[in-house]
Amino acid sequence: MAKFLSIFTMRNLLVLSLALNLSLIMRVFFDGEKQGFFFSAEQRGPSMAEDKEAHATQRTLQSVSSSSGQEGMEKVINLDHGDPTMYEKYWMMMGERTTVVIPGWHSMSYFSDVKNLCWFLEPEFAKQVFRLHRVVGNAVTEGRHIVVGTGSSQLILAALFALSPKDGSEPMSVVSTAPYYSSYPVMSNHLKSGLYVWAGDARSFNKEGPYIELVTSPNNPDGFVRHSMVNRTGGILVHDLAYYWPQYTPISSPADHDLTLFTVSKATGHAGTRIGWALVKDAEVAKKMVKFIELNTIGVSRDSQLRAAKILEVMTNTTEIGSSDSGESFFEIIYHLMAERWRLLQAAVNNGSMFSLPDFAPGFCHFLQQETQPQPAFAWLKCEDDAVEDCESFLKGHKILTRGGRSFGVSPKYVRISMLDRDINFSLFLKRLSIIQS
Amino acid sequence: MAKFLSIFTMRNLLVLSLALNLSLIMRVFFDGEKQGFFFSAEQRGPSMAEDKEAHATQRTLQSVSSSSGQEGMEKVINLDHGDPTMYEKYWMMMGERTTVVIPGWHSMSYFSDVKNLCWFLEPEFAKQVFRLHRVVGNAVTEGRHIVVGTGSSQLILAALFALSPKDGSEPMSVVSTAPYYSSYPVMSNHLKSGLYVWAGDARSFNKEGPYIELVTSPNNPDGFVRHSMVNRTGGILVHDLAYYWPQYTPISSPADHDLTLFTVSKATGHAGTRIGWALVKDAEVAKKMVKFIELNTIGVSRDSQLRAAKILEVMTNTTEIGSSDSGESFFEIIYHLMAERWRLLQAAVNNGSMFSLPDFAPGFCHFLQQETQPQPAFAWLKCEDDAVEDCESFLKGHKILTRGGRSFGVSPKYVRISMLDRDINFSLFLKRLSIIQS
Repeated sequence: MAKFLSIFTMRNLLVLSLALNLSLIMRVFFDGEKQGFFFSAEQRGPSMAEDKEAHATQRTLQSVSSSSGQEGMEKVINLDHGDPTMYEKYWMMMGERTTVVIPGWHSMSYFSDVKNLCWFLEPEFAKQVFRLHRVVGNAVTEGRHIVVGTGSSQLILAALFALSPKDGSEPMSVVSTAPYYSSYPVMSNHLKSGLYVWAGDARSFNKEGPYIELVTSPNNPDGFVRHSMVNRTGGILVHDLAYYWPQYTPISSPADHDLTLFTVSKATGHAGTRIGWALVKDAEVAKKMVKFIELNTIGVSRDSQLRAAKILEVMTNTTEIGSSDSGESFFEIIYHLMAERWRLLQAAVNNGSMFSLPDFAPGFCHFLQQETQPQPAFAWLKCEDDAVEDCESFLKGHKILTRGGRSFGVSPKYVRISMLDRDINFSLFLKRLSIIQS
Repeated sequence: MAKFLSIFTMRNLLVLSLALNLSLIMRVFFDGEKQGFFFSAEQRGPSMAEDKEAHATQRTLQSVSSSSGQEGMEKVINLDHGDPTMYEKYWMMMGERTTVVIPGWHSMSYFSDVKNLCWFLEPEFAKQVFRLHRVVGNAVTEGRHIVVGTGSSQLILAALFALSPKDGSEPMSVVSTAPYYSSYPVMSNHLKSGLYVWAGDARSFNKEGPYIELVTSPNNPDGFVRHSMVNRTGGILVHDLAYYWPQYTPISSPADHDLTLFTVSKATGHAGTRIGWALVKDAEVAKKMVKFIELNTIGVSRDSQLRAAKILEVMTNTTEIGSSDSGESFFEIIYHLMAERWRLLQAAVNNGSMFSLPDFAPGFCHFLQQETQPQPAFAWLKCEDDAVEDCESFLKGHKILTRGGRSFGVSPKYVRISMLDRDINFSLFLKRLSIIQS
């Protein structure tokens, strides 16, 4: 810790303080304007009637919309999804360094790099991805093909397509350990594909034959480090490491898997850019993923890849030892913001007995060169009160929108809460928790 | 014609001449560097062995790559796909007017407009789409929802998802009249969906029950205006109007269908931006398409929508009557470039008896206010020589890559040839046609 604090100098604190001040300016620009909600209806699983879902969505949108500008107890706080708007502050502070300028006649062709197996991959984006992983040390890049995707959602679908046999007698089983990412079931089943089918919690999966296991680590929703659960011959693993970054979890070693997914939205906060990437060992698997993306969207926006490349470049620049930008280290500043949020949340939760949070073990982070605590992008809150069966409904009664345990294959006593919203909403959320427990 | 020529003044000619000169500069920057090839393997239909396809792709990439910089008879000219690089010249001429500048902290949230049914639609993009259709007069926008997509490919898939019953006893049939867009069969079948299945040529479709008919007009590959072919109760139509723009075909009236698709790549030439849009009458259908895009890619790149909005804005500005930019009218300049290319191609074809082109009837274009000829984005060439059974292989022997009739559900005597490549490749193509016929 001492070493880390010495790295975190007066200069960093000044920058952090400036960043915090900027939140007031940001509030004027953003708050109320962009409060949002998305696909919680779909994510609650394919079993609910669509009409009901649509009406629920409409009601929520109306309530959010009508509450714009309110900051008191009447305002609906939407922490259901993981919109990473917390990050706006950091990038605003970085000013023009990450501004992209794209002339009208640039990047018009479908093709980014015809010599690459992934012909729609911008070479500059690939370069910055490799560079970032080398500096952070969170993934082995040697001997890997990069497949770029329109967010990691598209890459999950591309992986399911690539890894399922085309001539199987029945669809390939897709499993993940509960609580699992709420979109996995509906993503696997919405097209009633004959190639793959959702087969539920990996813990209880006992069907013979091949299967695909989705391993999310740190896990969405609960933040724990995950390993394969089924561990049987014939299993193919897809590692979704969207949250394997130093601001969320200790970086224990470079991930070294066959197929690993990352996304810009959780790494840098640029969710609207829709860029993810896969590191793929087997060229044939990578080619099939590329084929899927060809059929799905004929490649991936080149503009967005160029923007993402610029952002990753600046992010890595601020991080490299000896860099003149190191006083503004992205990972250190965001690590501290997350640490502060988790400290405040834990204090609010510990102020009563109605709620509890997971107990995380600290680990040595090879990037920050010290022991750190997990501080996930989502809080996995449990309602401990015996009178509350459905924690999502209970919090909704207090105008806090979250996503309940059932969406993740577990008890409704749990809810997932985004930790990445803007300061104003995070503060209101803490205030409400305190009032509920008072 | 007189009226049109009077519109096309000395100023336009000067601009056109400048544009043509720019091609030399563009050649230095672009040629050889971006020659490409994509998914012809997949588009040749799902029946070919994938290994064979992969090897064929690899060979082609190598040949293209090794021929970079050659301009003589050894260079492989790739006119297999519809990469619209011809348009670079126009946008280069327009200089900084279409430059987009995106600061690092802009458009970070997933959400573009939570009040819109399509929550990931940028309001500025929607505004420019409506404005463009009003000026061009090619589509009714009143009472329509815009659903933005990652290119129109994603919107075709979204439409298939939205229009197929979720609880049908068998998959919904998807048909289109041959020659049909070569991607329709494989897009419909690659996931072995239980919701929809490719059912072939609409002309021979006689199955009872509901079906989806894809109507591409003007048609890809042959350029003819199309209407529904099956015309039976229970049929749902999707109109793919990617090429319904004045540079390709007379604008007879504003299209007024239930579900109409457009794409930036064919309208402005920005294929790398991956933006398309659907005009959808029924809100429930639009909502289901939005749901598909949520599950597929969680929305559509906001950066790309902002760039597309800027380009459409400038395009419409140059077109509006009385605009100070009207001397650089996008549609007039591109119309003339296409007219010149078609004149040259017809001359080359008519110089012998080996090949033929479709006979198009002229029509009155309400946008250009005169009778115009169709001048499609693809030439649908027929090998008339009895000794040539497979026109694609024959032209490949002359180092011209095209896409053969079989991919479009018709005879291999036909090939589809892109008319939208850069000047240098188009000129080489004409030269080779002349040599073949000499």
